[in-house]
Amino acid sequence: MKAMAVTQFGKPLEWIDIEDPKPAEGEIVLSVAACAVCASDIKFMDGYYAKHRRFELPSVPGHEIVGTVTEVGDGVRGWQIGDRGVVYVYIACGICTHCRSGNDRLCRDLRHHIGQGVNGGFAEKIKIPARNLVGLSDKLSDEAAVVITDAVTTSQHAVVDQAQVKPGDRVIIIGAGGIGIHILQYVLLCGGYAILVDIDESKLAQGKGLGANETYCIEQIRDLPATVGFNKVIDSSGSLNDWQSIYRKIDAGGAIVLVGYKDGQALKIPVHEMILKELTVKASRGGSVANIYRAIEMVESSLIKPIISTVADLRDANEVIDKMRNNEFRSGRAVLVPNLNR
Amino acid sequence: MKAMAVTQFGKPLEWIDIEDPKPAEGEIVLSVAACAVCASDIKFMDGYYAKHRRFELPSVPGHEIVGTVTEVGDGVRGWQIGDRGVVYVYIACGICTHCRSGNDRLCRDLRHHIGQGVNGGFAEKIKIPARNLVGLSDKLSDEAAVVITDAVTTSQHAVVDQAQVKPGDRVIIIGAGGIGIHILQYVLLCGGYAILVDIDESKLAQGKGLGANETYCIEQIRDLPATVGFNKVIDSSGSLNDWQSIYRKIDAGGAIVLVGYKDGQALKIPVHEMILKELTVKASRGGSVANIYRAIEMVESSLIKPIISTVADLRDANEVIDKMRNNEFRSGRAVLVPNLNR
Amino acid sequence: MKAMAVTQFGKPLEWIDIEDPKPAEGEIVLSVAACAVCASDIKFMDGYYAKHRRFELPSVPGHEIVGTVTEVGDGVRGWQIGDRGVVYVYIACGICTHCRSGNDRLCRDLRHHIGQGVNGGFAEKIKIPARNLVGLSDKLSDEAAVVITDAVTTSQHAVVDQAQVKPGDRVIIIGAGGIGIHILQYVLLCGGYAILVDIDESKLAQGKGLGANETYCIEQIRDLPATVGFNKVIDSSGSLNDWQSIYRKIDAGGAIVLVGYKDGQALKIPVHEMILKELTVKASRGGSVANIYRAIEMVESSLIKPIISTVADLRDANEVIDKMRNNEFRSGRAVLVPNLNR
Amino acid sequence: MKAMAVTQFGKPLEWIDIEDPKPAEGEIVLSVAACAVCASDIKFMDGYYAKHRRFELPSVPGHEIVGTVTEVGDGVRGWQIGDRGVVYVYIACGICTHCRSGNDRLCRDLRHHIGQGVNGGFAEKIKIPARNLVGLSDKLSDEAAVVITDAVTTSQHAVVDQAQVKPGDRVIIIGAGGIGIHILQYVLLCGGYAILVDIDESKLAQGKGLGANETYCIEQIRDLPATVGFNKVIDSSGSLNDWQSIYRKIDAGGAIVLVGYKDGQALKIPVHEMILKELTVKASRGGSVANIYRAIEMVESSLIKPIISTVADLRDANEVIDKMRNNEFRSGRAVLVPNLNR
Repeated sequence: MKAMAVTQFGKPLEWIDIEDPKPAEGEIVLSVAACAVCASDIKFMDGYYAKHRRFELPSVPGHEIVGTVTEVGDGVRGWQIGDRGVVYVYIACGICTHCRSGNDRLCRDLRHHIGQGVNGGFAEKIKIPARNLVGLSDKLSDEAAVVITDAVTTSQHAVVDQAQVKPGDRVIIIGAGGIGIHILQYVLLCGGYAILVDIDESKLAQGKGLGANETYCIEQIRDLPATVGFNKVIDSSGSLNDWQSIYRKIDAGGAIVLVGYKDGQALKIPVHEMILKELTVKASRGGSVANIYRAIEMVESSLIKPIISTVADLRDANEVIDKMRNNEFRSGRAVLVPNLNR
Repeated sequence: MKAMAVTQFGKPLEWIDIEDPKPAEGEIVLSVAACAVCASDIKFMDGYYAKHRRFELPSVPGHEIVGTVTEVGDGVRGWQIGDRGVVYVYIACGICTHCRSGNDRLCRDLRHHIGQGVNGGFAEKIKIPARNLVGLSDKLSDEAAVVITDAVTTSQHAVVDQAQVKPGDRVIIIGAGGIGIHILQYVLLCGGYAILVDIDESKLAQGKGLGANETYCIEQIRDLPATVGFNKVIDSSGSLNDWQSIYRKIDAGGAIVLVGYKDGQALKIPVHEMILKELTVKASRGGSVANIYRAIEMVESSLIKPIISTVADLRDANEVIDKMRNNEFRSGRAVLVPNLNR
Repeated sequence: MKAMAVTQFGKPLEWIDIEDPKPAEGEIVLSVAACAVCASDIKFMDGYYAKHRRFELPSVPGHEIVGTVTEVGDGVRGWQIGDRGVVYVYIACGICTHCRSGNDRLCRDLRHHIGQGVNGGFAEKIKIPARNLVGLSDKLSDEAAVVITDAVTTSQHAVVDQAQVKPGDRVIIIGAGGIGIHILQYVLLCGGYAILVDIDESKLAQGKGLGANETYCIEQIRDLPATVGFNKVIDSSGSLNDWQSIYRKIDAGGAIVLVGYKDGQALKIPVHEMILKELTVKASRGGSVANIYRAIEMVESSLIKPIISTVADLRDANEVIDKMRNNEFRSGRAVLVPNLNR
Repeated sequence: MKAMAVTQFGKPLEWIDIEDPKPAEGEIVLSVAACAVCASDIKFMDGYYAKHRRFELPSVPGHEIVGTVTEVGDGVRGWQIGDRGVVYVYIACGICTHCRSGNDRLCRDLRHHIGQGVNGGFAEKIKIPARNLVGLSDKLSDEAAVVITDAVTTSQHAVVDQAQVKPGDRVIIIGAGGIGIHILQYVLLCGGYAILVDIDESKLAQGKGLGANETYCIEQIRDLPATVGFNKVIDSSGSLNDWQSIYRKIDAGGAIVLVGYKDGQALKIPVHEMILKELTVKASRGGSVANIYRAIEMVESSLIKPIISTVADLRDANEVIDKMRNNEFRSGRAVLVPNLNR
C-alpha cells in the first residue's frame, strides 16, 4: 500500500510503498477514510520526539483516523469486516491501575502512541489493537468524525474534567487553532464566559462566529486590557510563559490548565504568589475512551461542531503541513484523504 | 501594656510600651495566654513583606494566639468577658464571594493579616474583630491550643482539602518543621504512606516517632533512593525547586502541593513533561474557620498532637528566634508566654 | 405601613396595618419594590409549617424580595440609605461550621426563614439583618431581580452544585413551574440534554421555547416512552413517588436530585435495586449567598432569563394565589408590587 | 473435579462431580486454593436471585477466590501456568462507557457474576476470563488474600470513594460482620470516628479490638443514646429501615451509604426532611479492579487486616453456612479450602 512517511527527521514526508499491514492476534486492519493532521505529527516529523527515544524509519504519522474494518485478527471479538470506527491513539498495557481506571493515557507501561513509531493514518491502511477502535454509526460524515478522537476529545477532557468549567467561570482560552477552537465550544457549552486570545484575526473571527464572548488579537495575556478579569486559563497554544500577567489578574482560587506545549516551553511559578492566591496549575493529556463516547454524542447532537480547515489528498500532505507552519489556514484541523478525487 | 515589637526591619524585636488596645465597634480585646512563633513572623521582622507594601513601625508580630476576652466592643454578640479562644489570622471583608463561601483567606479585599501591620500576639493584649475569635473549651491547655489556628489548621487544609490524601497514597513530605510535623500527622491520619524528608536528623527522628513510614536526611528529592515511588508531594519547607527528580519518580496523575515558601523561590515546570504525566501543582493557603473547628476536634480527640519545640517567656523572643534561625530546636512550634515564671 | 398578612392559617391573606419596622442593631429596613410568590408562601398560609412549630399571627409571608435601603441600624457597615438589593432568606447563627463554610441554609441553629414567622416581603417595608442583603446594580429591573434569590439561585445550586450537570448528561426535569423553568435553563446552560415533564401543555410550550430538547405532558416518569433514556432526574414538583419507573430506565451511576416537596411526600427506595445500579439520591436546599452572586451574574449576562408569570398589585395577592392554586398561570413566578398603578 | 454445588434452590449444597473446566479463548483455569463464603452465596442457594432470572442447576457458588493458574486459553497474554491471583467477580462487556471508565460493576451489559450461574469457587477448579484475574505476589497467605476481592475491596469503595470519610467525620457503621468489620477498619484508616452498631456482643468486642471508638449492641439507630451525633451512616447489614432516627440526629449535609441489602428491604424517605438537612443517600456496589489493587496494597502493608471467622474443608460448606445463619461465628469471613487436612 501507499503512505506518506517520515524517511528522515527534519525532511518532508515521502510517498512510499509500504507492505500491507497484517493483523496479529487481537488486532484489526482499517481502510483509512480520512486522517487529520495534528501539531504532534509535525513535531514527530521534525524529530522532536526523536530527541527522547529512538524510532525506526520510515515511519507513518497520523493518529486522528476514521476508517472501515477490512481484516480481523485472531481472538478479536465484537468487530466485523465493514464496521466503521475512529481510532484511539494510546496503545496501553490494559492491566495497570491507570488502565483499569479507564485512564489508558496515563498507563504505567505505555507501549505506543499511534503515528509515533507505530505506523499511523497517513496511509491507505492501518492496523491497530481491536481495543483501540471505537465504533461509529452512519450519522456522521468522515469529515465530522475524523477529528473526534483528538481535537474534540482532548478539548472535552481539558474543559469538562480538568478545568471543570461551570456557569459563572470566566475563561481565557489561549490559541484558536485545531484544539483551541473546540475548547472554545466546550467552554461555552459548559456555561462559561469565553475570552479567546490568538495572534490571527481570521481565527478569532471564526471563534467570534462560534460564540466567543470576547476576542483579543494579542501575543500574551499581558497585552489584555486591564479591565479583563478571569478565574481560569486554558492554554492550547503552548505559548504560555508569562506568569506575572496571569497572576495579577486571575481571581484567587483560580486554575490554569495546560493542554498544548512547545519544545522547551516552561512555566516559572513564584511559589509565594501561587500560595497567596491559592492557585492550581493542572495538565490535561488527551482523553479516555469514555471521553470519546461522550464526544461522539456531542458531535452527533450538534452541540459541538467539528472544525475542519481544509480537506486535501493524502499525497498533498507536505503542502498542507507547510501551510500549517505558515499559519495560512483558518482555524480547525486539516484533513487528509487517501485517493481524494482520483 | 508591654510587647515585643518590630521597631526597625532587619533588627531584633524590642520590649516596648504600647498603649492598651481599646475595642472599636465589633472588636474584642484578649489577654494573651500564649503566642507561637511562625516562620512568617521572622519574614515580617526581616522586612520581607515590607518589600511589597508599607508598614508603620513599631508593629507587633504574632498570629497563633490563645487568650481570654477582657473587653467587648459595641455591637459584639456572642462573646463575654472571660471567654477563651484562639485567633483566626485573616481580617477579611466578609462580603465578597470568597468570604461568603467561607474562604476569608482568599478575600478579594483582604484588609489585614494579624501580626503583619495589625498588632499581633507578641504582647500582653491584643484586639481583634469578634469574627476572628474562635471559642475554645477548657479541654485543651494553652500549649495544646496555641498552634491550632495555623500549624494544625494549615496542615489540615493542605492534606485533607488540597492534597486529598487517601489510603494508598504515597506522599513525600518535604520539611519536618512546625508545619511539616503536623502535615505528617495528617497524612498518616488520612491513611497515607508518609515519606518524610528533612536535613535535620533530630526532626526526622521525631517524625519517625510520630509514625513516618520512611525518613530521609537529604536536601532534595533527587537524593532519594531510586526505589522510592510516590504519587503526591507536599512541600512545607519552601525549598522545592527541583522539578526533574519529582517528575522522574512521581506516578502519572500525581499532585504537588505547595504550603511553605521562601523569598525568591520559584518552580520551573517544563510544560510537555507536566502534560505527559497529567500532573497538578496546587497551592494551599492557611485554612478556613471551619477548618479550625475540625482542627480543634482533632486535637481534643488526640488524633493530632500539637508539637511544641519550646515554651519561653515573651521577653526572650529574640533568643528563641535566633535559635530557630540556627535550627537549634527539634521540630514543632516555639511558644511565647507573657510573664512566664515572673 | 400596609401588608398582606396571614391572620389565620387556612384563610386568605388580609390587608392590614402593621407598625413600621425599626432596625435593631445590625439590621436595615428596605422599602419593598417587589416580592415574588413562592409555593412555600402558600404552604405557610395553609398552616403546613405550623404543624411543626408555633407562629404568632398576624405574620407577613414573602421572601423573594427586591428593595431599597431606607434605614440603617447601629453597627451596620457597608450599606447606605438608597442602596438597592435583594434579600437572602435564611437568618442564620453565622458561627457554626456550616455558616462559616458559607452554608447558612444548613445552619445548626437556624433562627428564622424570612416570611415564615419573621415578617416578609408582602408589605411596603421589611427589616432584615444587614448580612441578609445582597447588593444589586441598576442593570436589572425589579422584575428581573426579584426572583434571583430563590427561583434562580435554588435552580443554580440544584443543577450546578448538586446534580453537577455536564455535557452528555440526559436530565429529566419534573415540573415546569417557577423553579422548574429555571432548572431547565441551568441544565441547558451546563450542556445537558433536557427532558421536561409537566402536566400543563402551556408550561411545556414555554420550556420548549427556552430550549428543552424533549417535553412530555404526563403525570409520572412511568408514562415516558420506553425509548427515553436518562442518567439524572431533578424533581422540582414534589410529585416524585415512583421509584420503579426511574429505576428501570436510569443509567447505572445515575442521580436523583430532590428540590421540591409536597406535604407527606415520601420516596420508597428498594435497597437492592439502588445498589445494583449504584444510584444516588441527593437533596438540594436553596442556595448560598455566593450562589446568589453567581445567579446575579447569570441574569445580568442574559444566560439565565428570569421567568415571571404575572405582575400584580400587592393588594391582589389572594387573587394571584388562587390562580396559582388553580394552575391558571403559565410558568414562572408571580410578582407582587406594593402600590402598583396607584 | 469435585464441587459443592446448588442442585436445588432452598436445599443444602451437594458434593458432586463436575466436568473439569476447559479454558475457551481468552480464559484461564485456576486451581482453587481457598474461597470465602459471602452472604450473597447464601442468597443464591436460597433462590433469592432465581426470583429475577433463570439459572441452570447444578451451579457452583463462590466468588471470593484465591488460586493458581493451571491452564491458559488461546489469546491470553500476560499469564503463565503457576501464576497466583485473586478473582474479580463481574464478567462485563469491556466496551460500554462504564467498563471503559473502569467501572465493570456498572456495565450496561453485565454478562455474569461469578458464582451466580457461572460456576464459582466452591470447587477444586474454576475457569474465568483472563481479564478477571488479578495477580498476587507471595507476600500474602491464602487466608489473607481470599477476602480481598470482595470484603476488603467492597469496604474500600464504600468508605473511600462513596462515603468519602475524612478526619472529623463521625460515622455510624451498621453491622460488624464480614463486610462491616472491614468497613470499620477503613473508616479508622481514613481518620474517621467510628461508631459500630450490631446485635452481637462478640462481634462488637472484635470491632472494639480493631479500634472502634464506640460500640452499641442494639437493633436500630433509634436505640442509640441521644447524645450520639454523627454525619455519616454506612449500612453493611441490610437492616436499615428507620429513617426518623437517622434524620433526627444526623448533621445537615450528611450522607447515608448503602452497601448491604436484604430481601424486600426498602428505605422510605420523607422528601421534605431530606431537603431540610440537604442529605444524600448513596449506594455502593462492590469495587473496581483498581480498587482491588489498592486493597492488596493495604493488606500487604498491614493497614487493613483481613478478618476470617473460620477456615474449613470445602466439603463442610453446609455446616459452615448453617453456623453463619445461626450467627455462631465471630466477625469476619468463613473460608472454604478444597481438601484441607486430607
